[in-house]
Amino acid sequence: MATTSPKTTPASTVAKLGERALIAHIRSLLAMPDWVYLGPGDDAAILEQEPRTLEALTTDAFVEHVHFDRKFCPLDAVGHKALAINLSDLAAMGAKPRAALLSLVLPGELTIGDLDNLLNGLLSLANRSKITIVGGNISRSPAVPRASEQGPLIIDVAVTGNVGRRRVLTRSGARPGDEIYVTGSIGGSVVGLHSLQATLNNSKQSRFETCHTRYLWPEPRVRIGLLLGRNRIASACIDISDGLGNAVKQISEASKVGMVLDAQCLPIEQIVHDWHAEQGTDAIAETLSQGDDYELLFTMPPKYRNRLLAINGLIDNIAITKIGVVTKKCEVSIQTSKGNLDLPHGFEHFR
Amino acid sequence: MATTSPKTTPASTVAKLGERALIAHIRSLLAMPDWVYLGPGDDAAILEQEPRTLEALTTDAFVEHVHFDRKFCPLDAVGHKALAINLSDLAAMGAKPRAALLSLVLPGELTIGDLDNLLNGLLSLANRSKITIVGGNISRSPAVPRASEQGPLIIDVAVTGNVGRRRVLTRSGARPGDEIYVTGSIGGSVVGLHSLQATLNNSKQSRFETCHTRYLWPEPRVRIGLLLGRNRIASACIDISDGLGNAVKQISEASKVGMVLDAQCLPIEQIVHDWHAEQGTDAIAETLSQGDDYELLFTMPPKYRNRLLAINGLIDNIAITKIGVVTKKCEVSIQTSKGNLDLPHGFEHFR
Repeated sequence: MATTSPKTTPASTVAKLGERALIAHIRSLLAMPDWVYLGPGDDAAILEQEPRTLEALTTDAFVEHVHFDRKFCPLDAVGHKALAINLSDLAAMGAKPRAALLSLVLPGELTIGDLDNLLNGLLSLANRSKITIVGGNISRSPAVPRASEQGPLIIDVAVTGNVGRRRVLTRSGARPGDEIYVTGSIGGSVVGLHSLQATLNNSKQSRFETCHTRYLWPEPRVRIGLLLGRNRIASACIDISDGLGNAVKQISEASKVGMVLDAQCLPIEQIVHDWHAEQGTDAIAETLSQGDDYELLFTMPPKYRNRLLAINGLIDNIAITKIGVVTKKCEVSIQTSKGNLDLPHGFEHFR
Repeated sequence: MATTSPKTTPASTVAKLGERALIAHIRSLLAMPDWVYLGPGDDAAILEQEPRTLEALTTDAFVEHVHFDRKFCPLDAVGHKALAINLSDLAAMGAKPRAALLSLVLPGELTIGDLDNLLNGLLSLANRSKITIVGGNISRSPAVPRASEQGPLIIDVAVTGNVGRRRVLTRSGARPGDEIYVTGSIGGSVVGLHSLQATLNNSKQSRFETCHTRYLWPEPRVRIGLLLGRNRIASACIDISDGLGNAVKQISEASKVGMVLDAQCLPIEQIVHDWHAEQGTDAIAETLSQGDDYELLFTMPPKYRNRLLAINGLIDNIAITKIGVVTKKCEVSIQTSKGNLDLPHGFEHFR
């Protein structure tokens, strides 16, 4: 009969296992492609470079009690989303994901089973996205003095990717006359969050499951970003995780153009409209100001419509919707049946 | 008269300034070299690659209440050390620092003056080390529910560097007969920590100021790492931040060799011996088991002694001390006047 160390059972904690055993445990889950000259286990990872490309580099932290709540976020979703938010940034640059560093700040009471769930969610997306975890760091999260609270669980990911010099998607290339597009559908994530919070006290509420999935398991639009870059049809691109309204403003400012959105065209699902109707809130205003949708907003000269159709044919089940036009006058607004609305500013930490 | 926004005065807080203004504030402090194709401000940074080199990539988090205590660590030292611990890892690979990502998790109550102190310490070392902050992230640190405690301040840095294929310093190349060297002096950092903690309740204790500096302002051995790699004299190299004992064990395991240290040769300063004598602790045993010395341990065939002397001549005021030899028998030990000691295991989180 095989023996299992009591330390590595799912119910044991990371504090009992200890840092070195934890690192060995995580390393055993990783496979290294041949461009990794030296993987985890030395002072730094050493990588062959991808020839004839530029390197894209970004980082995003995913912080308990700020970005997620373990009461309604399963840990495999937490691991998935911690990587997804970083991949979405690479997608918005047209970059192909390559390597990731995983910095974990773990409360000592976290169980090995919980850690494995987190890693399963993260590594499953990493494998699908062909990004390799080449290194990382584990630190203890500080228990709170004079309180019985655990320290927060934090997953801080840094990613690198590659993109050809002429394929970089920036925020600054939008020109008057370009059309404005957004991928997928929007507004579902925030409804998912509110519904999950409400579900805590009411187990019957399952009508909004598609929104729960949008909130917990966002799918970064890496392939669409790559196709937009390779086909050179997007004049500007950004991920809308801080809100569609904010994304529009960012492109407007960086490109020194105006943008007019058509509220009727926004890809907001019926279930999102239903939620807001029940809450007495305005679906369009809320969707514009709230974030957490990991979709791409991009601008494109109208002459590339056929190429965009071809790209759309390569992507299963992800809509690409025209939602407005780029204008010369440096103003951003949204046309609704009740007249023009100003754009709200979007999510911001400390607000 | 120039007007200052009350939000940007040193006494204001990061919560009052808000995420976007904070990012703009930090960006205003950064200068970009010409290989930065696109710096902070888009979804990811875009960099030209350094031709004909491998890329080194590593990350290390610096966590309040775990790695530092604001009661006796000034914030410029915190910023310095958060970068230094990462640069030390690049140094141990023989890599030249290039780009850094700065992920900050900030309690809302942190003042702008405190943040600026932290950034000053970090950017001063970055400038001296010729590493560019190309991007990053700011997140709120969660206030503790049902307690009046702030969330921890966390500085998570990821760094990249470059190293020629034949100049990579790994842990696995030590061979029997090689000599073992360590840079600088050891044991001072932990004495500095204990002395600073004691000083909190006793303002007179300043005999150990050199140790305070070792703890608060460690100087990563980037130049020595580069010189060891370029001259190809080191057969293995590691940074000893998790303890000298641990570092020796890591090289021994990776290289499949034994290592014998001579306790008499360890570069432990008199003030460190004095501290341990006063405390009734064993300076050698403590220095071997405690970490937080950002020095390099490396092995070298004896035939390169002259080259090492030449390197030593290029470096001001940093000793390079022979402390032992590599042996065939896969055991690590330390010879003392009282006989052979086993090596302790070194610092580990959750222990």
